[in-house]
Amino acid sequence: MSAIRDRVARRSLRPGDRLPSVRSFARTMGVSPSTVVEAYDRLAAEGVIRAKRGSGFYVTGADLPPLALAEMGPPRERGVDPFWVARQSLDAEASTLKPGCGWLPADWMPHAALRKSLRTISRADDALLADYGNTRGSLNLRRMLLARFADEGMPASADQLMLTNSGTHAIDLVCRLLLQPGDAVLVDDPCYFNFQSLLRAHQARIVSVPFTPSGPDVAAFEQTVATERPRLYITNSALHNPTGATISAQTAHRVLGTAAAHGMIIVEDDIFADFEPTLSPRLALLDGLDRVIRIGSFSKTLSASLRCGYIAARKDWIESLVDLQIATSFGGPSPIAAETIARVLVGGTYRKHMEDVRRRLTRARQKAIDKLAPLGLVPWIVPRGGFYLWCRLPEGCDSTSMAQRCLQDQVVLAPGNVFSASQTASSFLRFNVAQMAHPRIYDAIGNALAAEAKA
Amino acid sequence: MSAIRDRVARRSLRPGDRLPSVRSFARTMGVSPSTVVEAYDRLAAEGVIRAKRGSGFYVTGADLPPLALAEMGPPRERGVDPFWVARQSLDAEASTLKPGCGWLPADWMPHAALRKSLRTISRADDALLADYGNTRGSLNLRRMLLARFADEGMPASADQLMLTNSGTHAIDLVCRLLLQPGDAVLVDDPCYFNFQSLLRAHQARIVSVPFTPSGPDVAAFEQTVATERPRLYITNSALHNPTGATISAQTAHRVLGTAAAHGMIIVEDDIFADFEPTLSPRLALLDGLDRVIRIGSFSKTLSASLRCGYIAARKDWIESLVDLQIATSFGGPSPIAAETIARVLVGGTYRKHMEDVRRRLTRARQKAIDKLAPLGLVPWIVPRGGFYLWCRLPEGCDSTSMAQRCLQDQVVLAPGNVFSASQTASSFLRFNVAQMAHPRIYDAIGNALAAEAKA
Repeated sequence: MSAIRDRVARRSLRPGDRLPSVRSFARTMGVSPSTVVEAYDRLAAEGVIRAKRGSGFYVTGADLPPLALAEMGPPRERGVDPFWVARQSLDAEASTLKPGCGWLPADWMPHAALRKSLRTISRADDALLADYGNTRGSLNLRRMLLARFADEGMPASADQLMLTNSGTHAIDLVCRLLLQPGDAVLVDDPCYFNFQSLLRAHQARIVSVPFTPSGPDVAAFEQTVATERPRLYITNSALHNPTGATISAQTAHRVLGTAAAHGMIIVEDDIFADFEPTLSPRLALLDGLDRVIRIGSFSKTLSASLRCGYIAARKDWIESLVDLQIATSFGGPSPIAAETIARVLVGGTYRKHMEDVRRRLTRARQKAIDKLAPLGLVPWIVPRGGFYLWCRLPEGCDSTSMAQRCLQDQVVLAPGNVFSASQTASSFLRFNVAQMAHPRIYDAIGNALAAEAKA
Repeated sequence: MSAIRDRVARRSLRPGDRLPSVRSFARTMGVSPSTVVEAYDRLAAEGVIRAKRGSGFYVTGADLPPLALAEMGPPRERGVDPFWVARQSLDAEASTLKPGCGWLPADWMPHAALRKSLRTISRADDALLADYGNTRGSLNLRRMLLARFADEGMPASADQLMLTNSGTHAIDLVCRLLLQPGDAVLVDDPCYFNFQSLLRAHQARIVSVPFTPSGPDVAAFEQTVATERPRLYITNSALHNPTGATISAQTAHRVLGTAAAHGMIIVEDDIFADFEPTLSPRLALLDGLDRVIRIGSFSKTLSASLRCGYIAARKDWIESLVDLQIATSFGGPSPIAAETIARVLVGGTYRKHMEDVRRRLTRARQKAIDKLAPLGLVPWIVPRGGFYLWCRLPEGCDSTSMAQRCLQDQVVLAPGNVFSASQTASSFLRFNVAQMAHPRIYDAIGNALAAEAKA
């Protein structure tokens, strides 16, 4: 099928052309004629080709855009805004290297467990395969999450939890419930770039405070909250994106105190929790899910292809968020996807997988640090877990132009300023140590640095 | 596992209680001891029970809410607002009958194909199982959709199509792109109740025009568009929800003319297209995807558990919608779900399934009409397809109080006014003919009608 698609894409087969006969194409490809028949049938089902009675298969007309689809990569010309890294990473061709992306390589994920779980689901009852599922999402998955919360010392009741389409979607729902256009929202500087995109979509006023190795700068935090009166503070308090830093117990306590004093609500995006060697002080845990809303997801640790996140919060907020998710998505995540996740979480497989991932990340982190050092890139801190490494560039280098240079070599970097609301991180790059095995990455960075020095 | 869960839910096993020994419970259930061990291990993994070394399994403490979860049905006490039908239907217990719901029974769906497709996916490559997938969604599924559009005479290019988490989510994204709080949005009266919930979430001003058996009342439509200047018109032009009516070619032409004259954009929610015996005039098709945005989904015809919809529109809008979906969901639907759908659509299985569904619906529609007639319920029209039947109640009956009465008998009805922005449909009920096989439904309606007559 791909051989034919390529020919159509390369225009070596044009609309109206007759395809090679089954017999001859089978010889060409070194496969059985029945395989070719199957491939032609499927291409016909897709509309790429059509059968003409008694005269074989022909490429369909200009009504079909395989070429256009092949051409549709990420828009290279667009400015390096917070969408830039997302679009370049998500829509990259297979040959592109992505040390700037925000996820583990596919082959790090627990595939045996995922495949087994999908086979199990394929035998599930009709209702799971066909129905919308209930408004809070998979009962099995919610039970496991509540059990995990309890084990972590953060007991929550069933009406304090709901599943969502993703961690980002969870934050989006919270913003829809709690924000009005023009409201101030506090973020860390730097912070996950998509927080800024999301808040712009809500027409929120973004204010930021510097992030230190032990969490937000407490003095700046208290000052900003007092003067700007933000409605929300959105943060990753553990293994912070992009720095990998983790909030200290003292800072967490101060942050909660300040939030309480000014009636500010905190959204704790906790998607990196399972990457921690030991659980750090959690805002949601200290606060007992009163003014802190906990967000989680399985995209970083299990599969991003199953699209499932969750919200743990005050039950009156959850009740309203359930309605909001019905109004805007007619329900939560795919029940099939949620059950697939639940089945992977059952038993010890997932725990062993994460232990293995944490070990691999420790090694990969050290390797990356060692290989970046000769290039003059210095980690801001050495994170205690996770896959991010926030590095300072040599004097006078601009990370945005470096990212544009490296993109020419099919290497996607994450330049500092996409993470910085105050645009003060131009001398930083965020690396993903799990995506940096390939030497071509270091060559590209080296060349870009040399070009920067000349410029 | 469910046997133990039931005992915990029924409080016959309380927190701290010791579970039956593996051997004795195996005898009770008539299964092998190893099966019981497996079940106990899984319940332990979920946190429902815990093993104590050498002394068997015990029900865990108050940190776990199986009872609360069991209790959490839909909120019965809440008012009959547009959310009422959704919550009652989605969160109904298995024993509840749902002639008011908006989907086919699970056993009407193409399960063999779904199961086969899931097994195929379980053997897919690591990237499909683990990665986010590209920002517009599954290439295979988009290819098939574009081929189908072309076959229907509505050629579209690759950059005019994107996948979303659901049909509702697709409309939500469109509203986020095109609406500001306070904008007027035109809907049919009656219209799908969730359009109203969605528009309230966008703080839009809802205006409505009466829907006739051939589409919106053209005079009222032109008048309202001229005076209210709505930014959007959201409709199902074919097999309209709740009436089952289909817009005529003449009305479609007039509607498009009026929209063009006043710069109004049309969102055509086309999720019932595959239920039509023959394709009716499509606004999107007549308009060529200029000012009409086409929304689709697979929830009604294939599986609602896979959560996948799409948007076909002008390419500049799609480009912005892709960014918006990244900002608010970090990507589109589950790639695993989208590929599962694509594999069901390949070949003739799906087409045969829909032919069968259309035949079954024709029979079910006639049966429902025949059984409702003696109760005095008269269809507004007999739809040419789909599963909805919009029925007028006998003089003096109120459909909202009927719905509340029937809920006591575990029968969920869809009362007219949840569909009516002008609250003028209190004498109508929307039935789903595919969900009306059970005689208990007609008993409940009969009793409710009798009670209404007394009241």
